[in-house]
Amino acid sequence: MEFSSKILERAVNEMSQLPGIGKRTALRLVLHMLKQPKEQTTALVEALKTMRDDIKFCKSCHNISDVELCEICSNPIRDTSLICVVEDVRDVMAIENTSSFKGVYHVLGGKISPMDGVGPHDLNIESLVNKVKQGEIKELLFALSSTMEGDTTNFYIYKQIQDYNVFTSTIARGISVGDELEYADEITLSRSIINRVPFENSLKS
Amino acid sequence: MEFSSKILERAVNEMSQLPGIGKRTALRLVLHMLKQPKEQTTALVEALKTMRDDIKFCKSCHNISDVELCEICSNPIRDTSLICVVEDVRDVMAIENTSSFKGVYHVLGGKISPMDGVGPHDLNIESLVNKVKQGEIKELLFALSSTMEGDTTNFYIYKQIQDYNVFTSTIARGISVGDELEYADEITLSRSIINRVPFENSLKS
Ligand SMILES: [Zn+2]
Ligand SMILES: [Zn+2]
Repeated sequence: MEFSSKILERAVNEMSQLPGIGKRTALRLVLHMLKQPKEQTTALVEALKTMRDDIKFCKSCHNISDVELCEICSNPIRDTSLICVVEDVRDVMAIENTSSFKGVYHVLGGKISPMDGVGPHDLNIESLVNKVKQGEIKELLFALSSTMEGDTTNFYIYKQIQDYNVFTSTIARGISVGDELEYADEITLSRSIINRVPFENSLKS
Repeated sequence: MEFSSKILERAVNEMSQLPGIGKRTALRLVLHMLKQPKEQTTALVEALKTMRDDIKFCKSCHNISDVELCEICSNPIRDTSLICVVEDVRDVMAIENTSSFKGVYHVLGGKISPMDGVGPHDLNIESLVNKVKQGEIKELLFALSSTMEGDTTNFYIYKQIQDYNVFTSTIARGISVGDELEYADEITLSRSIINRVPFENSLKS
């Protein structure tokens, strides 16, 4: 792609660093910005800068939060002895949307994936295991997507905590294998939480 | 969509103002940014800010340029009496890529589209007509996409300049009707420039 302007080229190149945004799409997006009032680009730029500079992660569950302890963790009505283990923030949003879960979350920040160079130590696993070791957790509900990486991650955590007195469960597989959690419809997702099964059961299949 | 953070929500909302970027995609993109080193977001933000603040349009052809007169317009080898009329910067890039055009461009900045509230005065038409009136243009080559809006725009310009001594042509329609110029393969696009036809011919179909 030959550009008539270095400034344009740089903007396109930076936009096309984003996942799923090719050069053509990036060019379409920046040309759109040029047609819109300047304030619109300024607002986008400020929002991204603020996000990258100021965003915090809850010190307990690692969910994105504007305060030290997120609204879910600090809500006295939530059952802090029941922890739902999820991959990322989108899964918290999807489950909260169903209103079927009254416990708290633990956001791993990804799945174990040797192919992508993601090992257990790149994820928020240690802090989860420590919570269990402290003895105040009654149940861990695994809600990772049922891919090989999700299963590997579940199993890795399970091995770390199996000697402690904690019940482990997984969401019921009403959701088809391989599907991303966040795209599931509310009813299916809600049912899979209510009908959660002991984690050991999921090992038998 | 319920967000656990106002900062995250604002970033997602701003990203989803871009065309073709829904809330889910915006969320995926900003979460990706949060996983990458901070420098990457800083580079994107700086590039977009610089683009919106500093980008210039060539004072002759209205193409995006870092200097007052773009590289094409200021190139002494180019034939300034042959003007290719295009919708936007992407079309200049697509045609330049074929190396089959030795004239210069005139970038309209869009097509006449009453449905979208775009009239002739929202486009760089007056400066094109003025160029013709000054009498130094031998040929106008219309290279808008062959949609209803493209045809309307061609015809509007044609009516403005038909009393002046200028030859008008359109690129040969090897490109299928309704297709966007920028997605045409190089050979088809190249051929359609070499086999360009008098504009009057295209009115007969
Ligand atoms: Zn929290
Ligand atoms: Zn120019």
